Amino acid sequence: MNAAVKRSASIVGTAAGRRSAHSLVMMRHGQSTWNLENRFTGWVDVPLTDKGRAEATAGGESLKEEGFEFDMVFTSVLTRAVTTCNLALEAAGQSWLPTVKDYRLNERHYGALSGLNKAETSAKHGEDQVKIWRRSFDVPPPSLDRSDEHWPGHDRRYAALSPDVLPLAESLAITCDRVVPFWESDIAPALAAGKRVLIVAHGNSLRALVKHLDGIGNEDIIGVNIPTGVPLVYTLGDDLKPLPCPAGRTAAAPLSGYYLGDQAAIEAEAARVAAQASIRA
Amino acid sequence: MNAAVKRSASIVGTAAGRRSAHSLVMMRHGQSTWNLENRFTGWVDVPLTDKGRAEATAGGESLKEEGFEFDMVFTSVLTRAVTTCNLALEAAGQSWLPTVKDYRLNERHYGALSGLNKAETSAKHGEDQVKIWRRSFDVPPPSLDRSDEHWPGHDRRYAALSPDVLPLAESLAITCDRVVPFWESDIAPALAAGKRVLIVAHGNSLRALVKHLDGIGNEDIIGVNIPTGVPLVYTLGDDLKPLPCPAGRTAAAPLSGYYLGDQAAIEAEAARVAAQASIRA
Repeated sequence: MNAAVKRSASIVGTAAGRRSAHSLVMMRHGQSTWNLENRFTGWVDVPLTDKGRAEATAGGESLKEEGFEFDMVFTSVLTRAVTTCNLALEAAGQSWLPTVKDYRLNERHYGALSGLNKAETSAKHGEDQVKIWRRSFDVPPPSLDRSDEHWPGHDRRYAALSPDVLPLAESLAITCDRVVPFWESDIAPALAAGKRVLIVAHGNSLRALVKHLDGIGNEDIIGVNIPTGVPLVYTLGDDLKPLPCPAGRTAAAPLSGYYLGDQAAIEAEAARVAAQASIRA
Repeated sequence: MNAAVKRSASIVGTAAGRRSAHSLVMMRHGQSTWNLENRFTGWVDVPLTDKGRAEATAGGESLKEEGFEFDMVFTSVLTRAVTTCNLALEAAGQSWLPTVKDYRLNERHYGALSGLNKAETSAKHGEDQVKIWRRSFDVPPPSLDRSDEHWPGHDRRYAALSPDVLPLAESLAITCDRVVPFWESDIAPALAAGKRVLIVAHGNSLRALVKHLDGIGNEDIIGVNIPTGVPLVYTLGDDLKPLPCPAGRTAAAPLSGYYLGDQAAIEAEAARVAAQASIRA
């Protein structure tokens, strides 16, 4: 850990009363079996691959090496995020942290595309239509029917929710409309109370968060590809708006946050994720 | 799963309004590194061994095979219990369950014996004294000093607690005095609300619970050795008192609950744990 980061960490990490900044780290789950098969996953509850498990552990190890401590953790109710969270906390030596699992941090729901791969999607819906779904912020994919096996109402983890809040399909815009209220109702109050927060979630629920934090436009957010298993570190001011990236770190523009770890490896992984997204459409 | 158990599970597992019984499963964490070294562990935060991890996964698999579903999970803030909980839930396909981690489910605090093995304990305190600590319900081991590295006040996971509630040493009686109030305040209300509960904890915090549930006497509870990683299944009536063990299952007397899995293997493991305890004193 370089000296500038140590200073920054010490500002954030002292007793709540003296804290002048708020510490927030986000992490995308490691590779899942359907990431590997290039299928639209969304709310389908697929597990991590062995590589994904190793990514999660590596993320937790880098948090430990850099001296990050947390007071509270948020994750989704999808197994790949919860397992990533468990493995990262174990590697970071912080398994005991209170952990809230909430569906509002779930991945974007891919509607009737759930389970399809690129070839199947193009065959079913046509190349041009798939491009619109991929490139637009607010055009949702085709909706599921409630009789579809992938409708969340068939899964008991959502049994306490009104069927009206369970998505049939989500654009990124719709995803933002459930993630940001959860930020406001649960995560922001924890930060404001002085808690250092870790969020382990998904590509699109994290896009929703960084869009909100950094005021990224609807067009630009589509180009933001968050790598799997790499801690993304924000320091927030008292208004919970991002503070500039600390000296000695490079912000992952257009984000104010920075990624922990080997910068060249992170850039290569982001490029790979972006390429995979473009293959999809 | 035999027919009698299927019937029992179906009574417990239906919608809350129609439930005539309450489902509670307890599980002791898998083997830890200090179990293996035969050291008094208590609140010292040692990890699971590979064998312990495998035990936790096997426990979760047997829950899945037998069709057990839960609505809520409780565990301690010690890593070996949290990891067991994570691995068991993952194997059971229920990682998404809300999980409460609370220090009141921690292992008995072994005070100044923490970290000592049998030979060290006898050398330091004498064989006769060690026998008293081992065989008594209410004689605590020697107290830690608050300057001792093992005093919980030095660990930030207990930072929100008053130093007055942090133990310097606990007998089983003292352990019961913190576990049972947590049962009353948190676990029993969840069961009464119709939630099916899994508790993943420690040899002595689980002794405290089964002593309370089954009304086991102070002398007899010392002889109850709960095997690691094996689900212990209770069905409770509306008064949250144990119902008789279902047909086709054998209660682990003096407990009303039964162990899931290969009965001969479970009995061999309980005998091994009991033998290890007697080597200690």
